[in-house]
Amino acid sequence: AVYGARKMEDYGRFLVLLASALLVGFVTVIFSLVWVFHYREGLSWDGSAREFNWHPVLIITGFVFIQGIAIIVYRLPWTWKCSKLLMKFIHAGLNTIAMILAIVSMVAVFEYHNVSSIPNMYSLHSWIGLTAVIFYSLQLFLGFAVFLLPFAPVPVRAALMPIHVYSGLTIFATVIATALMGITEKLIFSLKNPPYKASPPEATFVNCLGLLLVIFGALVLWMASRPHWKRPPEQNAKVLRPIGGPPGGTEAESTMTDGSSADKSELRINSEAARKQTLKLDEAGQRSTM
Amino acid sequence: AVYGARKMEDYGRFLVLLASALLVGFVTVIFSLVWVFHYREGLSWDGSAREFNWHPVLIITGFVFIQGIAIIVYRLPWTWKCSKLLMKFIHAGLNTIAMILAIVSMVAVFEYHNVSSIPNMYSLHSWIGLTAVIFYSLQLFLGFAVFLLPFAPVPVRAALMPIHVYSGLTIFATVIATALMGITEKLIFSLKNPPYKASPPEATFVNCLGLLLVIFGALVLWMASRPHWKRPPEQNAKVLRPIGGPPGGTEAESTMTDGSSADKSELRINSEAARKQTLKLDEAGQRSTM
Repeated sequence: AVYGARKMEDYGRFLVLLASALLVGFVTVIFSLVWVFHYREGLSWDGSAREFNWHPVLIITGFVFIQGIAIIVYRLPWTWKCSKLLMKFIHAGLNTIAMILAIVSMVAVFEYHNVSSIPNMYSLHSWIGLTAVIFYSLQLFLGFAVFLLPFAPVPVRAALMPIHVYSGLTIFATVIATALMGITEKLIFSLKNPPYKASPPEATFVNCLGLLLVIFGALVLWMASRPHWKRPPEQNAKVLRPIGGPPGGTEAESTMTDGSSADKSELRINSEAARKQTLKLDEAGQRSTM
Repeated sequence: AVYGARKMEDYGRFLVLLASALLVGFVTVIFSLVWVFHYREGLSWDGSAREFNWHPVLIITGFVFIQGIAIIVYRLPWTWKCSKLLMKFIHAGLNTIAMILAIVSMVAVFEYHNVSSIPNMYSLHSWIGLTAVIFYSLQLFLGFAVFLLPFAPVPVRAALMPIHVYSGLTIFATVIATALMGITEKLIFSLKNPPYKASPPEATFVNCLGLLLVIFGALVLWMASRPHWKRPPEQNAKVLRPIGGPPGGTEAESTMTDGSSADKSELRINSEAARKQTLKLDEAGQRSTM
């Protein structure tokens, strides 16, 4: 098969959604550039409003678009033949790029504020935005320490993976909400004659940008939360399934390519606790075994 | 047991999170009242700013707090002994109350705008807010038609349930994002001397309200997305499991309380397609069989 060892369910629908997300995400980046170049002062790094303009461009490019791609990168079925370790490096690398761009974009605002004697950190946008960046850094650091470095034992990975997934999606949604607040602030502050409430072309254009950000977020969250679009478990995780336990029809897939498993001691069968534990380990294997 | 036929996993942790969500949600409602009565003009229905003030109060009470409770109402383990039909009426009822409050709160804004000659629907807040209300109405109508009325066949319910869950959570998150934009707008427009950027007490207080809304949303989304906290499947759905298929340890739970099933024709075993179909039907039974 062209996209790895297993067929993806609903492959056509996945491709349509992926193409839509990439298109919408790409259009939001273009819109941010049109906003700052056509309607605003352009970009430079001189403490003026043109330095501020890096803020929406870098946030939308990095903290929204690249973060969104990082979230769904494990879902791309043609990567399922690549090693899990490689995919983790790509996931971590994209998130690192997103964080660097987010930090640079924050520096642009602080410098602009300081040059113009505008107070920092007074708005709800700044409070929630800084909180999101702090949680994002924590998420990146913990993700690296637990899932990339080879030290964390499988039960720790299994216990932390649902938290990692939930935090990632919640931070992503919070970042988009913060971007919407930022757009609202910027349109109110910078549109004076005619004002925002008179709906000049810039207001309508940037409102559309805000709507596109919501659509991008909704597409990414849909793709990330479909269980049947997850990367299939690593083959060596299958050994953890209770004997006789797998639901009908998966036997053919259970041929082990790697018979060794350091986790056989975890294998307890014929109890509900064991079943749940096994599902958790299976999940950990699916997402965390290198 | 005091909370239904089955024990909930992590019951203590669930109670702590539920108590936190109820407390945070309750505090956001109190904060909205303190905002309009202590810092603003209070409430009345006379076309003045006091009519506008119903908007934040009703949105936070109805569209955030009550909608949040409606989302997690199936998770309360002491309701698991109640009929699924009763719980659906409570879920639909709470969402109907939330929608009525959201609509009244929108009427308050439109009347205030019209009296004060402020344009309607110019802001990103209004665009996304109205979109959320329209999708919420659709969600309520489709949920009623498909999951409450007895006409939709089980495969239709099974196919639409993941979309219903995803739409519900996405609308809820979007409503909170819209509330944050509304807070931003209102603080910029109404704080003039001193302005928002001078961080007067009202600004700090309402920023905290915004942070609490995000925390409430994050708590609800965590509780709603833990698979082991879902209401257990209805007993009569168990017949749909492939013979010999259930993972170890669930046999003891499989005693059927209702041997009849209109869906036995769906029962195909020993194929992957059947397994997936069965999982979907099981999900439909869990959430949709009355």
